[in-house]
Amino acid sequence: MDLPAASLTTLALWLDLTGTFVFGLSGGMLAVRRQLDLFGVIVLSTAAATAGGAIRDMAIGDQPAAVLQDPRILLAALAAGLVAFLAHRQVERLNKPVMLLDALGLGVFAVSGTQKALEFGLNPAAACLIGVLTAVGGGVVRDLLVTEIPRVLREDVYAVAAILGAGLVVLGDHLGWPPLLIAALGLALTFAIRVASVRLGLRIPRAKP
Amino acid sequence: MDLPAASLTTLALWLDLTGTFVFGLSGGMLAVRRQLDLFGVIVLSTAAATAGGAIRDMAIGDQPAAVLQDPRILLAALAAGLVAFLAHRQVERLNKPVMLLDALGLGVFAVSGTQKALEFGLNPAAACLIGVLTAVGGGVVRDLLVTEIPRVLREDVYAVAAILGAGLVVLGDHLGWPPLLIAALGLALTFAIRVASVRLGLRIPRAKP
Amino acid sequence: MDLPAASLTTLALWLDLTGTFVFGLSGGMLAVRRQLDLFGVIVLSTAAATAGGAIRDMAIGDQPAAVLQDPRILLAALAAGLVAFLAHRQVERLNKPVMLLDALGLGVFAVSGTQKALEFGLNPAAACLIGVLTAVGGGVVRDLLVTEIPRVLREDVYAVAAILGAGLVVLGDHLGWPPLLIAALGLALTFAIRVASVRLGLRIPRAKP
Repeated sequence: MDLPAASLTTLALWLDLTGTFVFGLSGGMLAVRRQLDLFGVIVLSTAAATAGGAIRDMAIGDQPAAVLQDPRILLAALAAGLVAFLAHRQVERLNKPVMLLDALGLGVFAVSGTQKALEFGLNPAAACLIGVLTAVGGGVVRDLLVTEIPRVLREDVYAVAAILGAGLVVLGDHLGWPPLLIAALGLALTFAIRVASVRLGLRIPRAKP
Repeated sequence: MDLPAASLTTLALWLDLTGTFVFGLSGGMLAVRRQLDLFGVIVLSTAAATAGGAIRDMAIGDQPAAVLQDPRILLAALAAGLVAFLAHRQVERLNKPVMLLDALGLGVFAVSGTQKALEFGLNPAAACLIGVLTAVGGGVVRDLLVTEIPRVLREDVYAVAAILGAGLVVLGDHLGWPPLLIAALGLALTFAIRVASVRLGLRIPRAKP
Repeated sequence: MDLPAASLTTLALWLDLTGTFVFGLSGGMLAVRRQLDLFGVIVLSTAAATAGGAIRDMAIGDQPAAVLQDPRILLAALAAGLVAFLAHRQVERLNKPVMLLDALGLGVFAVSGTQKALEFGLNPAAACLIGVLTAVGGGVVRDLLVTEIPRVLREDVYAVAAILGAGLVVLGDHLGWPPLLIAALGLALTFAIRVASVRLGLRIPRAKP
């Protein structure tokens, strides 16, 4: 916990760019499967990678949105689109690593979204909501753009992993834990729940209509 | 019109929470019908209950959005989701009361959205637009999330009721009527038009393509 | 380049209102084809005409959004909806002029969105993104509201024309060209690429999934 602040910021930046790239990849791959052209691939990769953060910033009032301030975010999204377009067969074969990276992205965005919301003075419930929106918002916009019911509504333990990670961040903040520890634990929790749920095929109860 | 200000604020708050809960119920019930899991039910109830207000606040620039400032709004939305999940059969049987409550929610949000827009200095046309967006925005997001054409585009006299209520608020404001009277009249007008249209099966003309 | 500033502002306003009206027409015509009622026609014309600018303003933080500040924008959108409702047969027959006007609207919004983003201090990549979002955002919302995959993802050279126009604006701004010249060139480029692509049936490469 005694790393210099500069390293922490660098770590956070790299995690964020990794999350952006991986989410962008998910958008690009969906676009290729739906046989969109190169431009459509880039639209879906950009939407998947950046819409969650953009919704977060518009809702809390941090404008211009982060994606408009740091060109590296946009660059990571574009790069993901190009990779999906040029190397979709190879990426498709990396099914398992992509799932793991996606779980990492989910954790990164849930944690960073919640921490940013707390910095902006939001109450715990609102901070959790923003954390989850940051983590799943990009995927929702991605799926809606090709008129699919968002994956977050179809997959069982996806947003729930983000909710629990966001909740841990809020709890740690309330208890005065150091921000880095909070971030690491929230990220690890989200990642572990998401990966375990895929491996174990965990289900959430459903009402019978 | 001589009630103390505190009672008025309390009344407005309770109306707002009622509208939030009822709209949340509409989202939760749709999610149960679409066989989403518990989490999906809560996502749809929260979206239906809060998206209209969130769009309003992002468009006029009142950030963080109200839903992020008052935890009771989020709580009402979550409660609606749980009720829909646990007691959907009972709620389904309450078809008529739910329609009445939904018409009440429509009126509450149309009025409160328009009044908030006027407070923020918007012109009459823009204030009406914001009032209608507040009233129907949640339902639009709810329906889009399960890739249905929004009910507001399918049902004949739904948004029209909100438009007329919003218009009355703008008119009353222009004529300098007291805010409470305006709110009561706008709410009553929206509610009456919506309920009458359902009862009488009113239709709006359609162009033949 | 020596026109008085007042004429320039007037020209920009008229171009903007023309773009708004034409995009509104595209929304209204789609609504008629989908057999929506009069209100649905107006919703779709308003969404198509104003959502791109509203997204731009919420993302960069210029609130209340322009559509809420200048009633003429809303009026142009409403007028387009009424024209689509009352004269859809005639408009349908004007297929070619409508395509040309739509290409004009695309150019106007791409240029004005990019220039506004630059005025708000955004970096070149972000300004291009905002320009493109302004130009295509209304169409995306329009299509999603009737659960169609957005035309911008289906048509080959649509957003690409907007991207190149936005890119030219950013380049010209960087090189210190006068704003009017930049606007004229960006508009002409977007218009020319869009019209040429329709005439020549240009395609963008697609990955084979």
